Amino acid sequence: MDPIRLGMVGGGQGAFIGAVHRIAARLDGEFRLVAGALSSTAEKARASGTELGLDPARSYDDFRQMASREARLKDGIRAVAIVTPNHMHAAPAIEFLRRGIHVICDKPLTATMAEAKKLAAVAAKANALFILTHNYTGYPMIRQARAMVAGGDLGRIRLVQVEYAQDWLTEAVEASGSKQAEWRTDPSRSGAGGALGDIGTHAYNLAAFVSGEVPQALAADLSSFVPRRKLDDNAHVMLRYASGARGTLWCSQVAPGNENGLRLRVYGEKGGLDWGQEDPNRLWFTPFGQEKRLITRNGAGASPAAQRVSRVPGGHPEGYLEAFATIYTEAARAIRAHDAGQPVPEGVTYPTLTDGLQGMRFVEAAVQSAKRNAAWVTL
Amino acid sequence: MDPIRLGMVGGGQGAFIGAVHRIAARLDGEFRLVAGALSSTAEKARASGTELGLDPARSYDDFRQMASREARLKDGIRAVAIVTPNHMHAAPAIEFLRRGIHVICDKPLTATMAEAKKLAAVAAKANALFILTHNYTGYPMIRQARAMVAGGDLGRIRLVQVEYAQDWLTEAVEASGSKQAEWRTDPSRSGAGGALGDIGTHAYNLAAFVSGEVPQALAADLSSFVPRRKLDDNAHVMLRYASGARGTLWCSQVAPGNENGLRLRVYGEKGGLDWGQEDPNRLWFTPFGQEKRLITRNGAGASPAAQRVSRVPGGHPEGYLEAFATIYTEAARAIRAHDAGQPVPEGVTYPTLTDGLQGMRFVEAAVQSAKRNAAWVTL
Amino acid sequence: MDPIRLGMVGGGQGAFIGAVHRIAARLDGEFRLVAGALSSTAEKARASGTELGLDPARSYDDFRQMASREARLKDGIRAVAIVTPNHMHAAPAIEFLRRGIHVICDKPLTATMAEAKKLAAVAAKANALFILTHNYTGYPMIRQARAMVAGGDLGRIRLVQVEYAQDWLTEAVEASGSKQAEWRTDPSRSGAGGALGDIGTHAYNLAAFVSGEVPQALAADLSSFVPRRKLDDNAHVMLRYASGARGTLWCSQVAPGNENGLRLRVYGEKGGLDWGQEDPNRLWFTPFGQEKRLITRNGAGASPAAQRVSRVPGGHPEGYLEAFATIYTEAARAIRAHDAGQPVPEGVTYPTLTDGLQGMRFVEAAVQSAKRNAAWVTL
Amino acid sequence: MDPIRLGMVGGGQGAFIGAVHRIAARLDGEFRLVAGALSSTAEKARASGTELGLDPARSYDDFRQMASREARLKDGIRAVAIVTPNHMHAAPAIEFLRRGIHVICDKPLTATMAEAKKLAAVAAKANALFILTHNYTGYPMIRQARAMVAGGDLGRIRLVQVEYAQDWLTEAVEASGSKQAEWRTDPSRSGAGGALGDIGTHAYNLAAFVSGEVPQALAADLSSFVPRRKLDDNAHVMLRYASGARGTLWCSQVAPGNENGLRLRVYGEKGGLDWGQEDPNRLWFTPFGQEKRLITRNGAGASPAAQRVSRVPGGHPEGYLEAFATIYTEAARAIRAHDAGQPVPEGVTYPTLTDGLQGMRFVEAAVQSAKRNAAWVTL
Repeated sequence: MDPIRLGMVGGGQGAFIGAVHRIAARLDGEFRLVAGALSSTAEKARASGTELGLDPARSYDDFRQMASREARLKDGIRAVAIVTPNHMHAAPAIEFLRRGIHVICDKPLTATMAEAKKLAAVAAKANALFILTHNYTGYPMIRQARAMVAGGDLGRIRLVQVEYAQDWLTEAVEASGSKQAEWRTDPSRSGAGGALGDIGTHAYNLAAFVSGEVPQALAADLSSFVPRRKLDDNAHVMLRYASGARGTLWCSQVAPGNENGLRLRVYGEKGGLDWGQEDPNRLWFTPFGQEKRLITRNGAGASPAAQRVSRVPGGHPEGYLEAFATIYTEAARAIRAHDAGQPVPEGVTYPTLTDGLQGMRFVEAAVQSAKRNAAWVTL
Repeated sequence: MDPIRLGMVGGGQGAFIGAVHRIAARLDGEFRLVAGALSSTAEKARASGTELGLDPARSYDDFRQMASREARLKDGIRAVAIVTPNHMHAAPAIEFLRRGIHVICDKPLTATMAEAKKLAAVAAKANALFILTHNYTGYPMIRQARAMVAGGDLGRIRLVQVEYAQDWLTEAVEASGSKQAEWRTDPSRSGAGGALGDIGTHAYNLAAFVSGEVPQALAADLSSFVPRRKLDDNAHVMLRYASGARGTLWCSQVAPGNENGLRLRVYGEKGGLDWGQEDPNRLWFTPFGQEKRLITRNGAGASPAAQRVSRVPGGHPEGYLEAFATIYTEAARAIRAHDAGQPVPEGVTYPTLTDGLQGMRFVEAAVQSAKRNAAWVTL
Repeated sequence: MDPIRLGMVGGGQGAFIGAVHRIAARLDGEFRLVAGALSSTAEKARASGTELGLDPARSYDDFRQMASREARLKDGIRAVAIVTPNHMHAAPAIEFLRRGIHVICDKPLTATMAEAKKLAAVAAKANALFILTHNYTGYPMIRQARAMVAGGDLGRIRLVQVEYAQDWLTEAVEASGSKQAEWRTDPSRSGAGGALGDIGTHAYNLAAFVSGEVPQALAADLSSFVPRRKLDDNAHVMLRYASGARGTLWCSQVAPGNENGLRLRVYGEKGGLDWGQEDPNRLWFTPFGQEKRLITRNGAGASPAAQRVSRVPGGHPEGYLEAFATIYTEAARAIRAHDAGQPVPEGVTYPTLTDGLQGMRFVEAAVQSAKRNAAWVTL
Repeated sequence: MDPIRLGMVGGGQGAFIGAVHRIAARLDGEFRLVAGALSSTAEKARASGTELGLDPARSYDDFRQMASREARLKDGIRAVAIVTPNHMHAAPAIEFLRRGIHVICDKPLTATMAEAKKLAAVAAKANALFILTHNYTGYPMIRQARAMVAGGDLGRIRLVQVEYAQDWLTEAVEASGSKQAEWRTDPSRSGAGGALGDIGTHAYNLAAFVSGEVPQALAADLSSFVPRRKLDDNAHVMLRYASGARGTLWCSQVAPGNENGLRLRVYGEKGGLDWGQEDPNRLWFTPFGQEKRLITRNGAGASPAAQRVSRVPGGHPEGYLEAFATIYTEAARAIRAHDAGQPVPEGVTYPTLTDGLQGMRFVEAAVQSAKRNAAWVTL
């Protein structure tokens, strides 16, 4: 099958996540990048386009121009990846959705809840899909865990413990030239959440994705440990779920020794699961009263839900890029079905606008709670 | 040097922690068990004494009788280990302290704060020491961690993340004959805290011991997941320290797959530490911006504080019993110095009544907070 | 830059390694698959081509036809991936090399030493490159390890311990329909080595690649544990290196519990290294007398040699496919330089025919040694 | 029950293994040290005795004097621990055995095969037991592994891979004052084996203990990497077992980064086991085709064979000293039965003279093989 023609907004020279999206898009051969508005600086946009081998005619200075022209081209893009800072998600997403171009957007959804709602309203009416890259849901062992919980292997869920610890903001790198740190610690570009928005939303989404639990209320204690930092760099959150389950979410970017320490543990009446992102091909499952078992990606015990998003046999590690690629490939399946007027094939799973809105609400509620001395806020 | 003559209250047939105390007491050759009131049931007390090879004349039916007689014997006990359920700590402790017999008491301090205060008042006037067996502070790598924090290796502390997860109360074993579970889930014997008292106090103590931080307030969300259980079997606690540091404490006895999962992570401006009780000979230290380092007990990088409580070279694992024995051996050093009218030798470290009172206050505050919907309670 | 036009020989429906090569080729965007002789069965070749979206005119029934036609096309392939069973490597490789088309060939080099030598002779005169996919040399931490050894961090090397354990041939799956097992256990297709050729050559190559040591002699004890299996499924090999270093190589496909357990340890006068393929983003380094250090891909302590083949930050795991892709991308760099008449850029590293010949000699020598009761055989 | 009265030969000030034996002897309360010939230097012997609180009358300058006097005392020792360097095992062992005093002797059995045979001859006629402290067989998970192999959980055994890596002899510490290194690298005190005797015998014994396999022949390549070292500091050994199973044994004292890295893997037709001494409370078991399982000491899946030598619940790590104590406690059970004229209770297991002779033969054969360029030598 021909790859889906893809455009990109943002992701020019020096960006981190744009390059990740490009690899993810092509890893399974489902997308081909053919157009871009890679930077808001015209010169940089063009230089980036050249570097990526884009046809100069399709390397745009401005996403509006790109949307308008690509929508008219016979072989224009069918999907666009939006990889700009948070405050620049809504505008391009709306622009492309309105023209029936599918949107694959980095998280969190937007910088503000107002933008998020506006985007949601547009998306609801659009003849195009919206996919949010909560990429960690693409890991096979996360699919496995979700299937096991759904299948009752853990019994009724009691506890959902999720944490996401990093250390790259331990010092005030935003003051010493780190572009990545600059916008992530700037409320005008990042929104109301710092670590909360950047990684907390991932953790929140993952906990819900795997556990199937619906969060009902939270109490949050936020900190900005680094002097003069305007947004939280650490968040302690207690969670209550509708079912009676409880949990905590800890996210931090000031925990030295943690590179990208996303870890999820789910405990039920009948068993427990344990998974860590830095060793993603393994899932620990303990049926209560029995020996702990190591389920490996594509190894013994792997469920169909995990196998369908695995590429290579057990013991041959897949990683971050493969999980990210899975989001793209699931998106491709959904896009092809959509464009053919068919239902999404069974099993195809990707994060949507609903996940994005829940993430925005999570950040908003956590900030509210923190302002009220960690009082409970309904979600 | 002659071993210190030791008596024991509790710890008769079928008990778990009594046997642990006996091994710990003799492991370094510092104590010899010579007397006991091993059970409140006379017959069982005697049978247990016989089993342990006690002189029948010194195998008592009652701790009061034991205290009174041993205090008069020329070669009477110099110390007593109290290993009864929580509600039976205060009375014997007071009895022996009043007679100048040193007390080595299991944790938590007592079942109620009232008892704790009464005991504290007696201890303050007694010519005898009180040692609380927060045994996890005996691990060499915990001593190492404490020394590193105190020495500034982590810089100013920002975060103290402690958790203690078990799974043995996942089902209602207290209703099916487990003696250990019965009293621990019974408020009249255990006190106001379930998991909080049994393991939360250990976690709380360990966090303070290593970090040197003074907790100022907490917010706690308690659960009793198992139907009809009267005490908490899971606690989520957020903590604020006087210095501005923050932390969480999670303790659970319903987390399948966790045998005795006590883990402590401390993060500061300059580095981070990570230690887990099930792999106790290793301590992970990351100086921010450098490679993670594995410090091993008695291996390269081990500090004098760790070496002085190590017995065998690195790579030869020491475990739970050795750490417990270290509390006894530190107690022996303090007791010998006390009895010789000398100051406690430098470096000797053991948990005291102060630790016990703090643990009681932690439980009390957590219960208060939980009743007020996880409001902050000052410690 | 435009992707290099790539053809493929083998890799039709049901093949494992062909799909891996295709992902590896496109992951960094350096290659585009445009032609194939995907199966020796015409019908299957065509069906596979259709599935992969090949232009039917360039989906060939026969690699000779493909070589001859593609060499004449203006936009014919510049490189071909050969992913057939071992006995089908030499013929196509020779065919394409003679026409100046670069060859990227799966390992081991060939099934027999005679074929290997013939291929080597052709390659020596060809105006095209030959790249052997000893893909494990593409792991960043392997590049790191090699750079550390070369840089003297370990001092003079004493020991090289390598092992490669799998379990998928524990039972006689070759007799029950596994295509992968069938040819690998068939001397006429696989050559003289079973596990030796399939995974032993990887281990042998990796040990030499990292340690920089030149093997001088080996003594090998081979086993075929599964009844009626014609080739070794386990090999114990002792190695002596020219420098005086010693080592062992263990490869097995009958070790239950091992999925793809390639592990390399190198010890020198000043330090030791430890790396395992199933956790490939981590490298353990112990400078003698100091604490063990964990070097992570793109984390603190990562060398330029590792960073230049890393795609994402530390903590975001890269895996098997990325390492494989690195071989392709290094090949692309070399191919572009070759075709432009320029020297290979500094740092570009990939396994060559020399590695392939050494691997063939390793298998041959091990089989000889085994026949002579594990006598030493000079390499 | 009263502790068994124990004497000790060797183990004076500065010794490592003597202190270990003393802790091991008292840990379970089965022995009490009451006499010693703690050093061959009279003054040091006396000072050591004082330090240990021995009655001066029973702190001897000479083991012969001790044997002769203690044998006549009404409350003389019933057992003696011999913890001298290897060349000083046979003489005291013979002396005490002849007087009907049980001998608990450190490994390897002796320095020479001649001594070993002489000792064996005496032991055969003695009215006393001989226990060899191959302490690693005391680990509960080793007992578990042995029981599982014996019970058929692995099916017919194919492979036994054992390694024992240390790093403390990486440099010539024998030349710079390390007493431990001095005698271990001196053939006149250590015997023909260096690493072979010191740790290789442990590995060899453990492999046989767990696998139940009978070694038939070996081929060994020995190295002395450190200049001027007279004995091997690294040994690579290939093994063939009578049943057709194969294996390797690697022992090294020059592998930086290894503290006490004893690891055993056993693979059979139906499953595999993996155990490492530095994490001794865990045993990995993979039934072929199923998920890997983690069996923990006293946790789910622990067999009676493991439980009977466990002291505390799962998750409360036991270590090196507990395993060593188990050898002593098993010895005590055997001694009490012997002295009561009763059979050894079922399940009681400890290493004997036979194990010692096999270890001696292993060293002898490995040295012979190495001299003949790693030719096979029958065991």
